[in-house]
Amino acid sequence: MKGDCVLILSGGLDSTVLLYKLLEEGRSPVTLTFDYGQKHKKEIEKAKATSDILCLENIVYNIPLERIFHGSSLLSGGIDIPEGYYTEETQRSTVVPNRNMILLSFAVGLAEDRGLCEVYYGAHMNDRTIYPDCRPSFIEAVSRASQEGTYNNVRVIAPFMDWRKSEIVKEGARLKVPFENTWSCYKGGSVPCGKCGTCQEREEAFRIAGVKDTGVM
Amino acid sequence: MKGDCVLILSGGLDSTVLLYKLLEEGRSPVTLTFDYGQKHKKEIEKAKATSDILCLENIVYNIPLERIFHGSSLLSGGIDIPEGYYTEETQRSTVVPNRNMILLSFAVGLAEDRGLCEVYYGAHMNDRTIYPDCRPSFIEAVSRASQEGTYNNVRVIAPFMDWRKSEIVKEGARLKVPFENTWSCYKGGSVPCGKCGTCQEREEAFRIAGVKDTGVM
Repeated sequence: MKGDCVLILSGGLDSTVLLYKLLEEGRSPVTLTFDYGQKHKKEIEKAKATSDILCLENIVYNIPLERIFHGSSLLSGGIDIPEGYYTEETQRSTVVPNRNMILLSFAVGLAEDRGLCEVYYGAHMNDRTIYPDCRPSFIEAVSRASQEGTYNNVRVIAPFMDWRKSEIVKEGARLKVPFENTWSCYKGGSVPCGKCGTCQEREEAFRIAGVKDTGVM
Repeated sequence: MKGDCVLILSGGLDSTVLLYKLLEEGRSPVTLTFDYGQKHKKEIEKAKATSDILCLENIVYNIPLERIFHGSSLLSGGIDIPEGYYTEETQRSTVVPNRNMILLSFAVGLAEDRGLCEVYYGAHMNDRTIYPDCRPSFIEAVSRASQEGTYNNVRVIAPFMDWRKSEIVKEGARLKVPFENTWSCYKGGSVPCGKCGTCQEREEAFRIAGVKDTGVM
């Protein structure tokens, strides 16, 4: 299917639900997935599998950020992923410097190269506390930069910007998203650890939404 | 020398003069050079050599843009580099989609990773006509996004934004920049072709400045 917009699909819960939402709205995104040196490469397999199931073009692009960034626990070779609640100060070690601008800049370039005008990504309200590149002020500014820097005036759109993760879960349940085809755990194991910040956040979101998570054993 | 800011050093004339200007001002930039799939890889050697001569840390980072972008003549595998004057419509094929946001986003991430607050790049007035990601409105917006997306509020600064290339040449002459250690030609040969847009622009800038270009035979 010929794409009509670009979606950054990590293979996580938020971007996968966003994909199903865009499809419901009649869109056909090209999905762009990054192997950026994250420990949890399992999410990449999920992104590929989801795109295959939905017959969408998926591009996996390799940017080994661990070669230049040394301060993030999320990247291969970094310190251990912290355990504990998502909003705690310890979770700050999982920040990859300027990650979303890096990923978005490629997505915007891909849109420009193909004559498309919109890039979607799954930033949501829970991410704001720790990740500055998920805040509305960032999203607005990066969309402005993207529009100014391209002939197509490519816009960056984050439809879940003001949604809680539990609302995304509810929306996913409504859209019949196969949650088992999404991956959240940061630790890089073959099953979710249940202890890292993102495992705990996911568990909490499903609990609040009153939805069963088919993505955990 | 420990860096106190990040400079994107392509190995071309503009970023090299900017480097010497920053050094004169007492700064010590970490130089960041990209092998992004450009045909004119010779500029990378120049950037490395310049950084070595000045005892500065230089990082060459590889992002093979030709794998995802297919519309630019500047990239390996793309159509031929056009000849003719820089402002002509034909030169538009040399645009790499969203290139500067891609390169800047890495530079901003590097600054954030190292606790630095400033990223410099050599965009100038002549570039505006063809390259939207060299325009003041883009520079302002990308700097805003960078500040919003980082804990260090990293700023993007383009000191030559309102300078003509001939003024950069004059400044380079004043700073005794060894112009033979810079590379402009887009064609990827071992000597400058003299015919492509950037060769012509360089020749014109030196002519207007009344400076001899030691970078051409």
